[in-house]
Amino acid sequence: MTAFGERLARVFDEQGRLCVGIDPHAHLLEAWGLPATADGVRSFGLTVVDAVAGRAGIVKPQVAFFERFGAAGYAALEEVLAAARAAGLLVIADAKRGDIGTSVTAYAEAWLSPGSPLEADAMTISPFLGVGSLADAMTLAQSAGKGLFVLAATSNPEAAAVQQAVVQSGPRAGQSVARAIIEDVDAINQQEAGAPYGSVGLVLGATVRLADYGIDVATAGERTPALPVLAPGFGHQGARVEDTRRVFGSLATGVIVSESRGLLGAGPKALAGAVERRTEEVRAAHG
Amino acid sequence: MTAFGERLARVFDEQGRLCVGIDPHAHLLEAWGLPATADGVRSFGLTVVDAVAGRAGIVKPQVAFFERFGAAGYAALEEVLAAARAAGLLVIADAKRGDIGTSVTAYAEAWLSPGSPLEADAMTISPFLGVGSLADAMTLAQSAGKGLFVLAATSNPEAAAVQQAVVQSGPRAGQSVARAIIEDVDAINQQEAGAPYGSVGLVLGATVRLADYGIDVATAGERTPALPVLAPGFGHQGARVEDTRRVFGSLATGVIVSESRGLLGAGPKALAGAVERRTEEVRAAHG
Repeated sequence: MTAFGERLARVFDEQGRLCVGIDPHAHLLEAWGLPATADGVRSFGLTVVDAVAGRAGIVKPQVAFFERFGAAGYAALEEVLAAARAAGLLVIADAKRGDIGTSVTAYAEAWLSPGSPLEADAMTISPFLGVGSLADAMTLAQSAGKGLFVLAATSNPEAAAVQQAVVQSGPRAGQSVARAIIEDVDAINQQEAGAPYGSVGLVLGATVRLADYGIDVATAGERTPALPVLAPGFGHQGARVEDTRRVFGSLATGVIVSESRGLLGAGPKALAGAVERRTEEVRAAHG
Repeated sequence: MTAFGERLARVFDEQGRLCVGIDPHAHLLEAWGLPATADGVRSFGLTVVDAVAGRAGIVKPQVAFFERFGAAGYAALEEVLAAARAAGLLVIADAKRGDIGTSVTAYAEAWLSPGSPLEADAMTISPFLGVGSLADAMTLAQSAGKGLFVLAATSNPEAAAVQQAVVQSGPRAGQSVARAIIEDVDAINQQEAGAPYGSVGLVLGATVRLADYGIDVATAGERTPALPVLAPGFGHQGARVEDTRRVFGSLATGVIVSESRGLLGAGPKALAGAVERRTEEVRAAHG
């Protein structure tokens, strides 16, 4: 078994840092000439996988747009996940699940267990019930060579009230919620000495000012193993990939440049070319 | 269309406040003699629905235990949801979804749109991306006569760091995250003047001390419409239903007494009797 961090390092080296979202929302389905059905999201997802394979290394299906169609939508998602993994892409299921005890374990089993019908390489997860509530999912991920991305500082403005709130007690007292999550995740990754990246990463929006969360970007990322950072907010949402080091500082080491609508808006025929160009732009900007 | 709050009031009057969890986790499947497959969770769910129908008014399927089996698990869940609704039960999908923009709308469409394959009467939702991020889901719920239960103060101890953290800016500055969520939800329900309960409620664990979140139970629930409160933590987890008014104070008006393992542990044959007795105990204790 290869640890998630080693697989991520290989993807960065060989295929770059661009992650293409698979977001078949209503407007895009219409623009692509696809029906708003399970068949439509299947076709959309498989088209994106074809366009990305060989041109970028990572895809991120947004689970909500498949769940909308119930079991049939999940059957479509199973096909898209399998096609992406068969094409050698690293797949991050954007599920933002979160729960406690046997429930969070069941979510991790759904997305991260080898052989599961919804098997992906990593998933996004929500810490509203505490990073500690995710412990069993983290253990499962580490033991299966899979990854987790914990929401920390997201790019939507409504999130600041929760994510910038200040912890009142315990070892993280005085830190913002987002900063406390980074420290908790780093502590978990310490179990993987020698790995280039940890199995557990963060979701940090590229449009946020990390200083507003009490996070010093000059030093926040000086960790071993390095922290994987799934960073939406580039392209369509306004952040420039040229600014990655200014925005993320020492956290830039682990940044995955996640883009969805800016690329998907090119349409099914032009998508492959758009991905190819963007991969080169990201490589030129980030190194 | 009947608003969710009116349907909830009718359930409280006619069938009581007990909500029975549908939690087919691995240990319970084994104890019930069922396989750990999609067929197993289907059989488990349909058995619970049969046992509850006519004996209590509300069921709460834990989505994670169905998702574990991918599309086949969702097909099973569709059957369980349809059977529960056909039996006249109010169904709260315990999904704890949370996202932004078109993604959170897609989750709301999945669970709350009339005619959706996963149609329930209400769902649980996570505010880690800010209560504001859930606005479109709330609008959809209100317009479809459906309900939402926003996680606020959950019963697991790891959650305190996030949920007791103090908001730093904006109109809720100085309040705990959980308290700010209560105020935000109340503000949204103000749009439904005259309803006995709002369409948007809260998840508040029965084992938490609300004072630790800066919530004064004497006055927190003096709202019109009243706040629905989905309250796990009774029974197996230690809270006593006799203590509902002491724990929740003025919020007790909207409390749904949610129990899962304590009842499900009775096994498939004894479950109906256990639910019937518990409904009476809850009625006697709560009035």
